[in-house]
Amino acid sequence: MRLVIIGTGNVATVLSHAAQQAGHDIVQVYGRDAAKAASLAASRNALPVHNIAEISSDADLYLIAVSDGAVAAVAAELNLGNKLVVHTAGSVSKDVLKVCSTNYGVLYPLQSLRAEMPGVPDIPLLIDANTGDDLALLQQIAGSISSQVQIAGDEQRLQLHVAAVIVSNFTNHLYALAEQYCQQSGLDFRMLQPLISEVADRIKHGSPKDLQTGPAIRNDHTTISRHLQLLRDFPQLNYLYEELSNSIWLMYNK
Amino acid sequence: MRLVIIGTGNVATVLSHAAQQAGHDIVQVYGRDAAKAASLAASRNALPVHNIAEISSDADLYLIAVSDGAVAAVAAELNLGNKLVVHTAGSVSKDVLKVCSTNYGVLYPLQSLRAEMPGVPDIPLLIDANTGDDLALLQQIAGSISSQVQIAGDEQRLQLHVAAVIVSNFTNHLYALAEQYCQQSGLDFRMLQPLISEVADRIKHGSPKDLQTGPAIRNDHTTISRHLQLLRDFPQLNYLYEELSNSIWLMYNK
Repeated sequence: MRLVIIGTGNVATVLSHAAQQAGHDIVQVYGRDAAKAASLAASRNALPVHNIAEISSDADLYLIAVSDGAVAAVAAELNLGNKLVVHTAGSVSKDVLKVCSTNYGVLYPLQSLRAEMPGVPDIPLLIDANTGDDLALLQQIAGSISSQVQIAGDEQRLQLHVAAVIVSNFTNHLYALAEQYCQQSGLDFRMLQPLISEVADRIKHGSPKDLQTGPAIRNDHTTISRHLQLLRDFPQLNYLYEELSNSIWLMYNK
Repeated sequence: MRLVIIGTGNVATVLSHAAQQAGHDIVQVYGRDAAKAASLAASRNALPVHNIAEISSDADLYLIAVSDGAVAAVAAELNLGNKLVVHTAGSVSKDVLKVCSTNYGVLYPLQSLRAEMPGVPDIPLLIDANTGDDLALLQQIAGSISSQVQIAGDEQRLQLHVAAVIVSNFTNHLYALAEQYCQQSGLDFRMLQPLISEVADRIKHGSPKDLQTGPAIRNDHTTISRHLQLLRDFPQLNYLYEELSNSIWLMYNK
């Protein structure tokens, strides 16, 4: 297949790499930032495009990989006739692409992608399209770059996006708060890495609800009070410690 | 070394297994629950003890692996003369062991241990003792069962325990809330596993503060509002979504 990549960020970089590895041709990379477009295009054997009017009209798939909030604005500038165009956003309806083509859909990676990822990871992909033919074509393309492809409509994709924010953005924030606390207390945050990996890994084999441990589920007020006292100089962490402990207690004592 | 294990739970099971694998003799396993003591003792080639007065007086190390809140009560029942006794609790001072021996300390695993763990994991161990000789002996024993041993006093151990609760108990709770939400929304929670693993793994190579992504750090109110709307029937999750998003915003916009 011949692909045009619209965007130069993390998702554009990783998905275009995965597509190239799967044997697809990246014909153009469009980016508002000319230098970024040139750089990504060079590594994909593609032509860089800075003027949106110069986007090729003979590709098979147009992949809009820009931030969720920018999808609609980019779509409004495109005129692709009946060419299949997809965006990669978790929280945006496929319908915002109606303005630029009669054939449109979504290819949403349910993964936290970074341009500098080593190699090409196997990314869970959620796909959607406005016609059965387009969905079949997307299934074929998505299936060529990932072993984990599922069809998900706007509502389901948005729901999974919420869940993704909870298990990735919020957990990463807890790591960041703990790191800050360790730094300011003269502790080595790296010591916690085996624990962090264990907690994430073990839910491959069991329900997190059944695996909960810690002072909150034991209703161990002595330990909780001691911890809150220790966090007295970390107001944000102190506050979240109480809220999350309370939430754990609520889940198991209803 | 000859060890007596006091306790039959997750920590007692995993640490006694690790000690046995390292070539130490488990001579006795004491537990209030006779059946549990018999079962763990059998698998460690040790004698089960149900009556605390029958605990052997000729072991080299007495390991009290009971819940944090029960350590003091168990210590009060023991009389070990000058034998080295340690507890395994993150939030308990070593001094509560003074009542049962003149030689006491701590061997605290900075890991979430479960009896059913496959094999013997390499556990980060924090050690402490009231004399230099005891600390040297503990370092030797701990070093024989783990490659990651550090000395940490009461205050430092308590601080690391707080950090451990944040990165393990609280993240697991977020997984549990997301699982509950997926189940009630007809979504497959398993689809999130690659994302969960990626977020935990990538901080091996970078600071979580620098790796933060998601709508909160982008200050993307459109997405956040849509997510909160979707969580309207999940009050606890809705509440925590707002609090954690706010906390992310605070970290990066101060």
